[in-house]
Amino acid sequence: MNKIFAPSKEIWSDLLQRPIQDFEAIEETVRGVFLQVRRDGDAALQRFTREFDKVDIQDCRLSESEIAEAPALVSPSLKKAIQQAKDNIEKFHKAQQTERIALETSPGVYCWQEKKPIEKIGLYIPGGSAPLFSSVLMLAVPAAIAGCEEVILCSPPDASGRLHPAIVYTASLCGINQIYKAGGIQAIAAMTFGTKTVPKVYKIFGPGNQFVTAAKQWATRYGLAIDMPAGPSELLVVADETADPVFVASDLLSQAEHGADSQVLLVTTSEALLERVSLEVEVQLDKLPRKDIAGKAIANSRLIWVKDQQTAADLVNAYGPEHLIVCSQREEFYLENIRNAGSVFIGNYTPESAGDYASGTNHTLPTNGYARQFSGVNLDSYLKSITYQKISESGLMNLGPVIEIMAEAEGLQAHKNAVSLRLEKIRATLKQELGKS
Amino acid sequence: MNKIFAPSKEIWSDLLQRPIQDFEAIEETVRGVFLQVRRDGDAALQRFTREFDKVDIQDCRLSESEIAEAPALVSPSLKKAIQQAKDNIEKFHKAQQTERIALETSPGVYCWQEKKPIEKIGLYIPGGSAPLFSSVLMLAVPAAIAGCEEVILCSPPDASGRLHPAIVYTASLCGINQIYKAGGIQAIAAMTFGTKTVPKVYKIFGPGNQFVTAAKQWATRYGLAIDMPAGPSELLVVADETADPVFVASDLLSQAEHGADSQVLLVTTSEALLERVSLEVEVQLDKLPRKDIAGKAIANSRLIWVKDQQTAADLVNAYGPEHLIVCSQREEFYLENIRNAGSVFIGNYTPESAGDYASGTNHTLPTNGYARQFSGVNLDSYLKSITYQKISESGLMNLGPVIEIMAEAEGLQAHKNAVSLRLEKIRATLKQELGKS
Repeated sequence: MNKIFAPSKEIWSDLLQRPIQDFEAIEETVRGVFLQVRRDGDAALQRFTREFDKVDIQDCRLSESEIAEAPALVSPSLKKAIQQAKDNIEKFHKAQQTERIALETSPGVYCWQEKKPIEKIGLYIPGGSAPLFSSVLMLAVPAAIAGCEEVILCSPPDASGRLHPAIVYTASLCGINQIYKAGGIQAIAAMTFGTKTVPKVYKIFGPGNQFVTAAKQWATRYGLAIDMPAGPSELLVVADETADPVFVASDLLSQAEHGADSQVLLVTTSEALLERVSLEVEVQLDKLPRKDIAGKAIANSRLIWVKDQQTAADLVNAYGPEHLIVCSQREEFYLENIRNAGSVFIGNYTPESAGDYASGTNHTLPTNGYARQFSGVNLDSYLKSITYQKISESGLMNLGPVIEIMAEAEGLQAHKNAVSLRLEKIRATLKQELGKS
Repeated sequence: MNKIFAPSKEIWSDLLQRPIQDFEAIEETVRGVFLQVRRDGDAALQRFTREFDKVDIQDCRLSESEIAEAPALVSPSLKKAIQQAKDNIEKFHKAQQTERIALETSPGVYCWQEKKPIEKIGLYIPGGSAPLFSSVLMLAVPAAIAGCEEVILCSPPDASGRLHPAIVYTASLCGINQIYKAGGIQAIAAMTFGTKTVPKVYKIFGPGNQFVTAAKQWATRYGLAIDMPAGPSELLVVADETADPVFVASDLLSQAEHGADSQVLLVTTSEALLERVSLEVEVQLDKLPRKDIAGKAIANSRLIWVKDQQTAADLVNAYGPEHLIVCSQREEFYLENIRNAGSVFIGNYTPESAGDYASGTNHTLPTNGYARQFSGVNLDSYLKSITYQKISESGLMNLGPVIEIMAEAEGLQAHKNAVSLRLEKIRATLKQELGKS
C-alpha cells in the first residue's frame, strides 16, 4: 500500500482523487437501448436479455410458483439471519417516521407539511457472482414502511434463466411479488417507460455496474428520480494507537473486495499503527478468495500519517467517505467535527460489514464525495413532502397587503389581483354587515 | 379556454400533456460554456457576461458599498412587507427542524441518524424584468436555519452592470454577503468549478430560464446536487359550485402571467362554474399589463368538467400539479385523496399568490409532474443525514454470526473476516478471564 507522511494541504486534492468515472463513452449505448425499449417494449427487453445475458426469456415476470419455491432453496440458518437483519433495519427505519408539521404562521394563516409515499418505485438488484439479497432488504424494507403502493424488482437472470433464490426469497419476505427477470440498461429503460409486462415507476433505487449507473442517470431525462448518483465503494478508517491493526486491516480488505476500483484509506496519527496495518493487510489479503480484486483495489489505496486529530478530521471532511470507521480514544472529537460521511462506524468492535448487513442502518450510501451533499437511502427517500395552507378571511385581511406590495414590486399584477379581488369582497361584505347593524 | 366535458380515461394522458421540454438542442451551448469557464475561470465569465448580458463586468463580486447602498433604494413599505414574509417563512421552516434519531436496534447495537448542513451552497436568482427577491427569501431563509456555512448568490447584471436593489437588500437581510453579478449558464458553471472570484459550491438552488435549467442539469455531471429539475409553472384548481368564479379566474391568470408556457387547469364538478370562470378569465385578462404572456398560456389551458369528486381527485393525482387550489365543500375528501401535488391552497380565501410570497411555505416546488416523486424545497433540502453505529463487544457477540452467515452467502469472505477476527479476539479474552477466575 502507498504510505504518505504528513502531506501538505496543496497535495490533498490529488491525494484524495477518486478513480475517474466517465460515462460519455457508454452514453451512446444507453441512448440506443432506451430508444428501442421505448419503441418496442417487451420485444426489445427480450432481445437485449438475449444479447447481454445470453438467455432467452419469454415472460420476464416471475410466476407465483417460481416465487413459492424459493424458500425451500434457502438454508434455514440464512433465513434466520435475514430475518434478524430485517428486524434491525425495520426498527431503524421506522424510527425515522415523522409527524405532520402544522402551525399558524400569522393570525388566520394555517400552514402544514405532510409526507406522502411515492406511489410507484422500482428496485434494481444486480446479478452476477454475488447475490445481493442484502440490498433487497435495504431497499424494500423502508419502501414498505413508507407505504409505497407498487414496489417492483428487476434483476438479471443467470445462464439458466433464473434468479438467485435468496434474492427471490428476500423480496417475497418484504412483500414484493412483482419480480422481473431483467437486468442492465434494458431493465432501467423498461422501468422508465413501462412495457406491457414491466410497469413504469416514478423512482428507481439500487446498485449496479457502470452501465446500470449510466442508465439510471439517463432515466432522469425522462422525468424519473433515482436514489442517488453512484460510484465505486469506499472506506476511510481514521485511527490512533488504540486501534487494533488486525481489525483495521480486515475492514480495509472488506471494502477492497467489492471491486478493483474500490478505494480504501487509512488516516492515522500513529506511525506504529500505519506500519502494522500495512503488514497485516498483506497477510490477510493472501488468504482471500477474492484476492485478485482486493489486491488491485489495495494497490490504489493509501495509508496516510497526519500530525494531529484536527488534520485527520479535515482530511476526512475533504474526502467525504461513503463509509468512515473511527477507532480513536478521542472519538467524541471526531463525532463533533466530521461533517461529510455517509455512515460512521465507531470503535474497535463495529466493523463496516455490520452496516452492510445487519446493524439496522442503510447500506445504500453516497460515494464519490457525494456525502458532501447527499444522504444515504433512508425513509425519506421513499416519501415526498407536500405543503398546505388555508387562510381565513381575517387572515387574508392581515397578510393580503404584504402579498400585494411584493407582487407589485415584482411586476406581477395578476398575482396582486388574486388578493385584491378577495380583499374587495371581504371589505364589501363587512360594509354591508355594518350597514345592517 | 378549451372546455372539455367528461373526458374518458383513455384521453387523460393526452389531456394532461405538458409542453415538451427538449434540452438536447441547447446542450452543445451548455457544454461549450462549461468547458470555457472550467479552463479560463473569471476571464470566461467576463467574456460570456459581455456576450449574453451585453455589459462589461471587471470584478463580479458586489462590493461592500454596493451592498450598503441597497436599503436606501428600497421603499419602506416594501421593506416592511419583505420582513413580514420573512418572519412567516422562518417560522414554517424552523418548525421543520428534527431531533437526532437514536435507538438500540438489538442489545449492544446502537444506531443513530443526524442531519448536518451542506457546507457550501449557491443560489441563482434570475434577472430580467421581474426582480425575484421573493425567491431570495425562499432559498436563503432555510439555508440560514440549516446552518449552511457558505451561501453565495449569483444573479445577472442589468445593462448598467447592476443588480436590482430589492434582490441585494433581501440577500443581505438574509445574511448573504457573497453576491456575484453573474447570470445564465456561465454563473452555473462558475459555481460548479469555482473561479478565482466565485467559490465552488456543493449544491445549486434557484429558478431560471431553459438555459439555466439545462446548465443546472449539466452541473450534476460534475458531482453537484441541484434543488430539483425544473419546468414551466403550473396551477390546477379543483372546484365545485361553492367556489367563487371571480377568484378562480384571478388565480388561473396569476399563474398564466408567469410565462407563455405556463399551464393552468380547472377541474370542476360544476358546469355552471366552468362557464362563469371561462367568461371571467376573458374579462380579467383584458386588464392585465402582462396580457400577451398570460393570453398565450391561457390558450394552452383547459377547463375540464368531471362527473364526481373521485374522478377529479384521480385527475389531480395523474397530473401532479405544482400548485393545487381546492375550493370545494368537500375539501376533506380532497385532502385525504390527493397524493401528488407540490403545494395545496385550500378554500376561497387562499390565493396561490399567498404561497408565492408570504404564507410561509416555500414557493420552489416540483413542476412537470415531478410532484409524484419530489418534494418542494424545504429545510431538508439544505441538510444531509449521516448514520452512525457503535457496537459493544457483547453486541457483536450477538449480531456477529448473522453478519457472518449473510456475508458468506453473498460470497464476500473479507466482509465475514472483519467480524470473525473480532469474535475470535473476544472469545479468546473471555476464555483467558474464565481461566483466571
